[in-house]
Amino acid sequence: MRKPKIVILGAGYGGLLTTVRLQKLIGVNEADIVLVNKNDYHYETTWLHEASAGTLHHDKVRYDIRDVIDRSKVDFVQDTVVEINKDEKKVILEKGEVDYDYLVIALGGEPETFGIKGLKEYAFGITNVNSARQLREHIEYQFATYNMEEEKNDNRLSIVVGGAGFTGIEFLGELTNRIPELCHEYDVDFHKVKIYCVEAAPTVLPGFDPELVNYAVSTLERKGVEFLIGTAIKEAVPGGILVAKGDAEPYEIKSETVVWAAGVRGNSVIEKSGFEAMRGRVKVQPDLRVPGFDNVFIIGDSSLVINEEINRPYPPTAQIAMQQGEVVAKNIAALVRNKSELETFTFDNKGTVCSLGEDDAIGVVFGKKITGGKASFMKKVVDNRALYMIGGAGMVLKKGKFNLF
Amino acid sequence: MRKPKIVILGAGYGGLLTTVRLQKLIGVNEADIVLVNKNDYHYETTWLHEASAGTLHHDKVRYDIRDVIDRSKVDFVQDTVVEINKDEKKVILEKGEVDYDYLVIALGGEPETFGIKGLKEYAFGITNVNSARQLREHIEYQFATYNMEEEKNDNRLSIVVGGAGFTGIEFLGELTNRIPELCHEYDVDFHKVKIYCVEAAPTVLPGFDPELVNYAVSTLERKGVEFLIGTAIKEAVPGGILVAKGDAEPYEIKSETVVWAAGVRGNSVIEKSGFEAMRGRVKVQPDLRVPGFDNVFIIGDSSLVINEEINRPYPPTAQIAMQQGEVVAKNIAALVRNKSELETFTFDNKGTVCSLGEDDAIGVVFGKKITGGKASFMKKVVDNRALYMIGGAGMVLKKGKFNLF
Repeated sequence: MRKPKIVILGAGYGGLLTTVRLQKLIGVNEADIVLVNKNDYHYETTWLHEASAGTLHHDKVRYDIRDVIDRSKVDFVQDTVVEINKDEKKVILEKGEVDYDYLVIALGGEPETFGIKGLKEYAFGITNVNSARQLREHIEYQFATYNMEEEKNDNRLSIVVGGAGFTGIEFLGELTNRIPELCHEYDVDFHKVKIYCVEAAPTVLPGFDPELVNYAVSTLERKGVEFLIGTAIKEAVPGGILVAKGDAEPYEIKSETVVWAAGVRGNSVIEKSGFEAMRGRVKVQPDLRVPGFDNVFIIGDSSLVINEEINRPYPPTAQIAMQQGEVVAKNIAALVRNKSELETFTFDNKGTVCSLGEDDAIGVVFGKKITGGKASFMKKVVDNRALYMIGGAGMVLKKGKFNLF
Repeated sequence: MRKPKIVILGAGYGGLLTTVRLQKLIGVNEADIVLVNKNDYHYETTWLHEASAGTLHHDKVRYDIRDVIDRSKVDFVQDTVVEINKDEKKVILEKGEVDYDYLVIALGGEPETFGIKGLKEYAFGITNVNSARQLREHIEYQFATYNMEEEKNDNRLSIVVGGAGFTGIEFLGELTNRIPELCHEYDVDFHKVKIYCVEAAPTVLPGFDPELVNYAVSTLERKGVEFLIGTAIKEAVPGGILVAKGDAEPYEIKSETVVWAAGVRGNSVIEKSGFEAMRGRVKVQPDLRVPGFDNVFIIGDSSLVINEEINRPYPPTAQIAMQQGEVVAKNIAALVRNKSELETFTFDNKGTVCSLGEDDAIGVVFGKKITGGKASFMKKVVDNRALYMIGGAGMVLKKGKFNLF
């Protein structure tokens, strides 16, 4: 009898957790497991703001996929997914193709630019290891060049962060720690550096407790960030952006470094493959399968799960992706064993911590509000927990954050 | 009685050595000493190839001027020299002016581009701390960006060094050590990197012993450098250079990183101030004074001293500048004490060592040819000696090179 073939696309939080759970649940004789990923490494998306600011080396935010998978059970294919052919049950890759009996789509999200002109061309992103280290080096090059020019270009020392959501705020926390180091390194006067945060929404960190938001804003303002709230980026142009508050006349903020950290949408492969989606995200069934496709699961940033309490989708996070991975692994094991009863996914929100730099943060954990050192400690616990969930204690020892206090 | 005022312009090898010798020779009541320099630090020009390649941090190649001058005797002014008014005996600075009774011009050289179009706009230099760290960061940004682009731009991994003289060859030695690290850092295939050295002269390191030149060329070729000898850069353009061998048709070498390391001329302040000069260099008298100006000395890269043996000028080096500084300090002390007998400068060539990277070099020391580890050892001795001459044993301990073997 032919063994069923399970194909997992993507080795982010959701895909890799699914893989390591499946390799425990499933015997070698029960099914073949194939993991497809663009890179041979997994990276901690939630740590990219640090690599982007240059406060943590990018090699500290990634690890080799082969270090956590059981190669006797999982066949790892390094390739890029082009499209999924649902009817023929196969995945088209750049360098080949792979057929499947069960498919887990965990390809992660993509930056959502909301059609704002020029962002794709002129703005940097905090999206993956490549973009993080490019942004880090770009900022460093601006500082390195500043003193070289007879006519000083102060826009080299101006950084605009588009978006005051989670990524934007965490990046600002690291950036404000990094700037004094850069000033020292390149003999630049600290007072010449300008950091702006532009947010179209009426508040920083929408959805967060107002008291914690105030704490975050005043902390970052003290460290030199100027917030432009209720202000939309209208267009990115070479050397700056055009912004407008409400319906007011747009004006320009000059900057050689515009970082777009405002939105995530589902993976473009989803729409390309003909799945019904909203901004690339598929509203999955309670068992995380795609409606109409009994053998296809979608988890992570390309899946959409409604928070019944407020009747809005849960925001895409590492936490939800990993919890989905746990359920998908069990459900696929059940299907392989011909059980029709599948587990239902419910999100268990353990809390959220938003870093404000190395030793400061805000958060709600187990329903309690925390700030400062305590929150920063919890942030590192959260970060280490993700390593532990996928790679076990060994990975925590290798890549964990131990500067806990 | 009014004390005479000695003004030294520039805190490079020559100017700073003059200052530290003068502060020992001259009593507080004999004369005022003023040192003018653009930066508050001295940098080791002969180590800039390391800072530029990124193999040595730029803070290791500079030190605070105030660490070596005796502030009870020397008044340090951080300012940039605009022009010297010889008739009124004063120096125009960007932020003020200073008059003098005795003047030492030790302003260093400037890159000579021989009128080659586009070099000033598109080529990087190994000229000072600012340019060195900009070049380092530029190269790093090219590697960081390579994997970000869907259409890979291989020109980001192509580096052209214009000039196979001392600076060019030493930079290539460091660069070839640095490239494997950059490839590892940014996940770039080593074989995609191209390094060219373009030299118009018929040989690498003109004036060096042919056997040593062969050693250098074969070492660098083995490390991946392609030499284009007898080939002139005709023009630098965005994204590359046009070169031609002899009278042949020019062709383009594509590269995002063109480094011009081929020529040094005297400081532009020399010509601006109306001194008679050849390429910014003044042929000084045997006592190092400017013909016609009994109170003005010029030393270092802006001075021209003839090597009588071959009837050609000595090339500008740190060694000659420091030896000139010794003589100038004595001669000024003599003038202050109204002695008319001044010392004559003769260059005592102790040898030359050209580095080929961290652990390899070629050189002639005390008339003997050396290569490999022995030459590399001697190179570090030479480097430490410059620190010792100006800053004493303390500076050697602080900034010296101790990876001697």
